[in-house]
Amino acid sequence: MSQKLAPSIRISFPLLALILQCTIIVLFIFFADYSKDSPRKYTATYPVLQDVNTMVFVGFGFLATFLKRYGRSGIAFTLLLAAFALQWATILEGLLFDFEDSKIRISLSSIIHADFSAVSALVSMGAVLGNTSPVQLLLMTIVEVTCFTVNKWLLKFLLEVDRKTSGMYLHLFGAVFGLIVSQVLHRPGLQNGHEKEGSFQISDLFSMIGTIFLWMFWPSFNAALLDTDQDKAVFNTYYALAASTVAAFAISSHIHKEGKIDMSHIRSATLAGGVAVGLSAPLIPSAYIAMIIGLITGVLCTLGFKYLKAMFQLYLGVHDTCGVLYTHALPGVIGGIVYIILLSISDDLQRKMLHTEYWQTAMFITMAMSILTGLITGFILKLNIWKQPPDLKCYDDQAYWQFPHLATII
Amino acid sequence: MSQKLAPSIRISFPLLALILQCTIIVLFIFFADYSKDSPRKYTATYPVLQDVNTMVFVGFGFLATFLKRYGRSGIAFTLLLAAFALQWATILEGLLFDFEDSKIRISLSSIIHADFSAVSALVSMGAVLGNTSPVQLLLMTIVEVTCFTVNKWLLKFLLEVDRKTSGMYLHLFGAVFGLIVSQVLHRPGLQNGHEKEGSFQISDLFSMIGTIFLWMFWPSFNAALLDTDQDKAVFNTYYALAASTVAAFAISSHIHKEGKIDMSHIRSATLAGGVAVGLSAPLIPSAYIAMIIGLITGVLCTLGFKYLKAMFQLYLGVHDTCGVLYTHALPGVIGGIVYIILLSISDDLQRKMLHTEYWQTAMFITMAMSILTGLITGFILKLNIWKQPPDLKCYDDQAYWQFPHLATII
Amino acid sequence: MSQKLAPSIRISFPLLALILQCTIIVLFIFFADYSKDSPRKYTATYPVLQDVNTMVFVGFGFLATFLKRYGRSGIAFTLLLAAFALQWATILEGLLFDFEDSKIRISLSSIIHADFSAVSALVSMGAVLGNTSPVQLLLMTIVEVTCFTVNKWLLKFLLEVDRKTSGMYLHLFGAVFGLIVSQVLHRPGLQNGHEKEGSFQISDLFSMIGTIFLWMFWPSFNAALLDTDQDKAVFNTYYALAASTVAAFAISSHIHKEGKIDMSHIRSATLAGGVAVGLSAPLIPSAYIAMIIGLITGVLCTLGFKYLKAMFQLYLGVHDTCGVLYTHALPGVIGGIVYIILLSISDDLQRKMLHTEYWQTAMFITMAMSILTGLITGFILKLNIWKQPPDLKCYDDQAYWQFPHLATII
Repeated sequence: MSQKLAPSIRISFPLLALILQCTIIVLFIFFADYSKDSPRKYTATYPVLQDVNTMVFVGFGFLATFLKRYGRSGIAFTLLLAAFALQWATILEGLLFDFEDSKIRISLSSIIHADFSAVSALVSMGAVLGNTSPVQLLLMTIVEVTCFTVNKWLLKFLLEVDRKTSGMYLHLFGAVFGLIVSQVLHRPGLQNGHEKEGSFQISDLFSMIGTIFLWMFWPSFNAALLDTDQDKAVFNTYYALAASTVAAFAISSHIHKEGKIDMSHIRSATLAGGVAVGLSAPLIPSAYIAMIIGLITGVLCTLGFKYLKAMFQLYLGVHDTCGVLYTHALPGVIGGIVYIILLSISDDLQRKMLHTEYWQTAMFITMAMSILTGLITGFILKLNIWKQPPDLKCYDDQAYWQFPHLATII
Repeated sequence: MSQKLAPSIRISFPLLALILQCTIIVLFIFFADYSKDSPRKYTATYPVLQDVNTMVFVGFGFLATFLKRYGRSGIAFTLLLAAFALQWATILEGLLFDFEDSKIRISLSSIIHADFSAVSALVSMGAVLGNTSPVQLLLMTIVEVTCFTVNKWLLKFLLEVDRKTSGMYLHLFGAVFGLIVSQVLHRPGLQNGHEKEGSFQISDLFSMIGTIFLWMFWPSFNAALLDTDQDKAVFNTYYALAASTVAAFAISSHIHKEGKIDMSHIRSATLAGGVAVGLSAPLIPSAYIAMIIGLITGVLCTLGFKYLKAMFQLYLGVHDTCGVLYTHALPGVIGGIVYIILLSISDDLQRKMLHTEYWQTAMFITMAMSILTGLITGFILKLNIWKQPPDLKCYDDQAYWQFPHLATII
Repeated sequence: MSQKLAPSIRISFPLLALILQCTIIVLFIFFADYSKDSPRKYTATYPVLQDVNTMVFVGFGFLATFLKRYGRSGIAFTLLLAAFALQWATILEGLLFDFEDSKIRISLSSIIHADFSAVSALVSMGAVLGNTSPVQLLLMTIVEVTCFTVNKWLLKFLLEVDRKTSGMYLHLFGAVFGLIVSQVLHRPGLQNGHEKEGSFQISDLFSMIGTIFLWMFWPSFNAALLDTDQDKAVFNTYYALAASTVAAFAISSHIHKEGKIDMSHIRSATLAGGVAVGLSAPLIPSAYIAMIIGLITGVLCTLGFKYLKAMFQLYLGVHDTCGVLYTHALPGVIGGIVYIILLSISDDLQRKMLHTEYWQTAMFITMAMSILTGLITGFILKLNIWKQPPDLKCYDDQAYWQFPHLATII
């Protein structure tokens, strides 16, 4: 049966990857150009870029290693997808936002913007982790980065929403997109894979590398696109994270009949506070507000993970490996509501980048875009040409990785 | 028997955690306020904060994963305790040191100071790692951060010791406090747990993540609170660490009958040099002095770990899981002596923040405070209301963590 | 049999380590002195140093954990060797390049230069990983750092090649030196070790920690020694890495009969692009050129790893555990050719640090030096006084590490 799998994957995956890479190269030949930052700007911006990169490669990468039989795929495919997403997003961001004299100007900030688009793709990957072939993951990444950037452009074009606010709807967009794709791809055969879902002590520890680095650098992430009030954004993110960490441990222990804590709650709900204060971080005037937001988000995320995850899969057929609905979508919605409230009570007019109604419309457009494009992407991925053979075990590294075989030398 | 454990933990732990978090929130409502740093200060200070955070979350977190059956507890409880300690220390530091206009001013530096207090709690955690319930760990953290900050305030009030010197007695205070707590908590049943103590290849590798990050960022830690001579502090810390690394490998190999090296020596003695030059780092005029201090500390730490650890446990009933006596207390004392010598031969008057006698008194007060408050804390933790049932296996993850149970969906 | 091993290792290794450390201390007493950087320089340079340190300690350290039975040795010996190399290189760099008033001035930049020399030693370690005793590793490190620094000085003295270009020939020198040593040390008994060579799921994941951190901080590495155009160096390194990542996945999948991917290709070929643009990074005018270089290097590195590794071992007796020939030497040569082409078409005269012919001579000298000194080092390491007994199993942690034995307390 793996004989049937072989010809398809060893042709289709390399072919797709190389065609995409060559397309990117051709686009860069025609459109890309380096801009020159001042040395002072470089010294100030490069650490920000590296902090965001740490989120993308170390954070999301190792977070994706928690499945007991899918660890290597989790980390390695994250590296591959991020490498693609970064290049592709640079092109798209440039074409839609920084196009001058028929050229895209590549700067440290444009790579940071590209990193944010890559994060939206990695969030979606969390929803389908272990259920998709490399070909499907590649396609999904390219399509999602495109849709996310177009959505960003739409919001700017229609509502004059600054693209620096993308940190907000990124989590919502990525999560909803991923969940819709997961729902479309859902097939009965998946149920067979459940025995392979789940973690064990060692995969839990690897995924904690991701969790810890995400936790630590989330303040950098929320402050990365800001020109002012970075310190306030950092403080509020820290306190929101701290409170949601406490909530995650407390609630997870309480809802287990023996008081035990579930590592999957720790992986997701400790970070929920950072998502929830996303865009509002520089607006929140006092630490206690950030803490309350973090606490509530942590509680809701843990409860959602515990009580809704199984229901969603059973009744809606939405399989959500990493629980992105509770880690990204739910805190994203809470964050949106917080932002609207903070905007409406704020009297700092300069801050009111857009009226409250505009923001509601922006959220609506983002939801609509992510559902619509997620549906289309799901159906594209379901086409027979990409589909892995029905007997491909999901959550299984062995399908993609071989052991090194140096011992073959006689 | 786990039925007996259950009701207690699933009520007491969440209750305590949430009460503490809500208390913190209320205190923040009344007392906390954000201060505004200049953008230049932010660019210079934020990387320092992140380096120190890397020590706290990645360094101490993964260092605590070395027990073969307690890895998840080690990393996850470190995250929880650090999240608490950071918030609690911000309040206390603010009330005792930065209180103006009835408000605490939260700045990047106040979070760095809070990080240092969190480190003192994590050092103590090392002494009782695997022998305590989450409730006891939470209580210990809150009490210790309080005692440590009060000690810091006492030293300032009585002897005008600058709180920036806290990097010095932090290791001593944390280690002694933890050892005293461990001694008080010691019970015969612990002996049964010994078979579970110890590491294995994979937990050794996880704990090396912590060791390596601690090693690398120790120079940042020793330079974090300085206004001048950061570069000297960085150089001296590097060379002291390098020399104690060599000493750790050499001595560990020599004292084993087959020349093998003990990973627990590598985990502790390679870092001892960084502790020993703690406060003196900016004062040491030449690299070779730092190297000699590092070499001697590395040798003593390895020998202590090998020959004294078992004796301490057998005769004094002090169980010291991570060997904090040799990694933190002993190098801390060496560092104190070095500091007094350097002060007495230094002719840089500005540097003489306090007279030598004052510093000796300061060390004495710190020792007395850590022993006294450690004793009180130990007896509080021993109260029946917190105590885990006697049949709780120590060093055992399974008591606190459940496996994700997604497979329960039919 | 381990009785025969014991006396030798528990005497020779500690003795050598302590003698070397004391020699370093004596040299520092006579020659080393701290220089004073301005606070602004410190703020700008310290993060660069930490990025490079991350490469050395986290990157190369965890990359060396991939062997299933040699993980602890990989990470711990990397720490030891790097601690030595850093001290030793500071002395040598100082004596040969920064010697003024009979003193070496130690600054942040001199430590960065020392880090680069340490990297050359760690590259060589990759070629002999698992086949050498700690004594041999120590000796090799000291000799190689010396030869590498002398080579750097020769190039400056003879051809006025700026030592800031050392980033280029570092990979070539380290790889060739290591391969020659490996060839000389090769003995028939090694074949027996093959069953222990190879990785498994968990060691693959540990080594991915190294790969990811190397990937992320390679741009910092390529920009670390530059005074201008750091941003261009960063961009080009990113795009070269991204393209070689895509190439590694695509080719690795294509050349396996079932389309599976080999983790050892991911570990090496994803990084090949970073090596290949090494020195040229600040010179490459457009991103697409970096991408094309990265793509070609990634393809060649993967193909070399697959088809040439076994041949080299079989016919030339060169055993290359980490495949440094394909990860460092081959991309190093490609990088040298790219540099010569870029220099010859560049019209920026200031950039032409040396004429093309000079550069070719420089490459030739480097190759000759690395082969010659590698041969001598190999024969020194083969002397009976260092040689491990013939029955020492290679790739075996158990020869060097004992388990902690706390349970010995009754």
